[in-house]
Amino acid sequence: MIFSAQIKVMPLKDLLDPQGKAVLGGLANLGITSINDVRIGKQIELTIEADSKEAAHQIATEAATKLLANAVMEMFEVTIVG
Amino acid sequence: MIFSAQIKVMPLKDLLDPQGKAVLGGLANLGITSINDVRIGKQIELTIEADSKEAAHQIATEAATKLLANAVMEMFEVTIVG
Repeated sequence: MIFSAQIKVMPLKDLLDPQGKAVLGGLANLGITSINDVRIGKQIELTIEADSKEAAHQIATEAATKLLANAVMEMFEVTIVG
Repeated sequence: MIFSAQIKVMPLKDLLDPQGKAVLGGLANLGITSINDVRIGKQIELTIEADSKEAAHQIATEAATKLLANAVMEMFEVTIVG
C-alpha cells in the first residue's frame, strides 16, 4: 500500500532563528508590521510503500531521525495522511 | 489578540524537485528503500497581532503572496492556529 507522510521539521524553540529574523525584517520593509515573530522550517512529503499505516510511520520516523532532521537543532513531527 | 499562522509552501506538483531527488538518493544510501518520492518545501510559523482570526489569515496570506512564496514555482496553504 502507498502512504503519504508529512514531516514538519522546525528549529528548537530556544534557538535563535536568523532566517526568521531576516524574513521578519523583509516583511516590515514591505509594510507588514503586525507580525511579531517568524520561524522557518522544512515541510517534507514522502510517498512510502508499506504494509500498514504504523509501518509507514516507522519508516518516516527513521528517515527523519537518520537524515531529514538535525537532532541537535531541530524537532520534527510525522503525520501519515490517507 | 495574538494568533499563530502556519504557512506551508511547497513546489508546484508538475515541477521537478531536485532537492527531493537528492534526499531520495541519500535515504536509499542509508538503506531506506521503501520511499518512492520526496518533496521538500518550507514550513513557516508567524506570530501575528490582529483583531480577528480572519484578519490574521489575511495578514498571513499577504505575507505569503508578497514574500514567503514564489508564485511561479510554489503553492502555499495558510492555517490559523488557536
